[in-house]
Amino acid sequence: MTVGRKPDDERYQAILETAARLICERGYEGTSMQEIAAACRLTKAGLYHHIQNKEQLLFAIMNYGMDLFEQQVLARVRDIADPVERLRACMRHNIALVTHGTSKEVVIILHEHATLTGEAREYIDRRKKAYVRFIEATFAEAVRLGQLRPIDPTIVAFSFLGMVLWVYKWFKPDGRLTDTQIADGMVDLFFSGLASPGAVSTSSEAPVLSLVPPSAVGEKS
Amino acid sequence: MTVGRKPDDERYQAILETAARLICERGYEGTSMQEIAAACRLTKAGLYHHIQNKEQLLFAIMNYGMDLFEQQVLARVRDIADPVERLRACMRHNIALVTHGTSKEVVIILHEHATLTGEAREYIDRRKKAYVRFIEATFAEAVRLGQLRPIDPTIVAFSFLGMVLWVYKWFKPDGRLTDTQIADGMVDLFFSGLASPGAVSTSSEAPVLSLVPPSAVGEKS
Repeated sequence: MTVGRKPDDERYQAILETAARLICERGYEGTSMQEIAAACRLTKAGLYHHIQNKEQLLFAIMNYGMDLFEQQVLARVRDIADPVERLRACMRHNIALVTHGTSKEVVIILHEHATLTGEAREYIDRRKKAYVRFIEATFAEAVRLGQLRPIDPTIVAFSFLGMVLWVYKWFKPDGRLTDTQIADGMVDLFFSGLASPGAVSTSSEAPVLSLVPPSAVGEKS
Repeated sequence: MTVGRKPDDERYQAILETAARLICERGYEGTSMQEIAAACRLTKAGLYHHIQNKEQLLFAIMNYGMDLFEQQVLARVRDIADPVERLRACMRHNIALVTHGTSKEVVIILHEHATLTGEAREYIDRRKKAYVRFIEATFAEAVRLGQLRPIDPTIVAFSFLGMVLWVYKWFKPDGRLTDTQIADGMVDLFFSGLASPGAVSTSSEAPVLSLVPPSAVGEKS
């Protein structure tokens, strides 16, 4: 199995880019190699000159999505010394990643989570699990320092991921809420909770959000 | 468009059941009408005697999933007078719904959210949006009563949904965490937040969770 992309091959990159756009729009099963070839202005035989098979193409796209994620989220927060600030920044960068229209590879990772098989699936799953472990470990560090209270770290990690990754399903670039407002609101909610009496902001940022009528909402589903 | 199922037709029900199982396993695009017919022990022509077309079948399954959701979540919490208790109970029942293996129709609603088109998609989207509005309105009511603080209700509603619905991606029936432990932890986190100094439980239930090593985790992705 060829792992990842070949960054020097422009033609290969262009194929990944086109295939990712189609698969993001139509789903993996809903996109044929014939359609990918046509969109790349190649014959099907010409496409197979660059690509082993359809599953290898999906794997390469997902691997590139994980590279994007690591560049745009993990690499920017990994060295923040304070674990609470690391978690906050991680939430913000991850929301930015899923709200940017350029992240079709990330949407494919989220949507086609059960499509890959065998070794390719295990490899992507390992990269995803490393992120879960990073959130769990950062949270556990904050608990050890007495900054956060001891909730189960797995529940914390997947609550974090659920809030943040679900955003790709409802965010509209032209909707009422900007990506920054969503990030501010979710960081506030995740760290301070909804409960009025106990709500103590751990952030130096002012809380953004006012109570707006639910009818003013713009979201997808 | 025929809306919903025909509850009196046992043959039709059995077809929906079989099709839902296949689509849940393989995805909508990955499941052919030929395969559905074979699994129902029908010819393809025989299948079309009961079903207009594949999209109508998906629509009927999703509609049935929304019925299940309304019976098992909304109907059980709608009449709870206190809005905070209504939200808590709603979170618990919704987690129970997505952790029960019987809810393949609900998984299909979550996974195939962009597959339906036209009138059928609008109809399912309206049913989904009614749930978002219910959470927003319940939260707004609690804010008016001074029980919860004013975070943006859309962010609250989709954070709730993200945490709860994402569970279907990582929950393992034989994993370390039971559905009840996940529900207890998420309710605690959602209402009281992570922050140590401000954490005041608004619940009469004792907090369940201790800090366990992240390595003891069992989840799917």
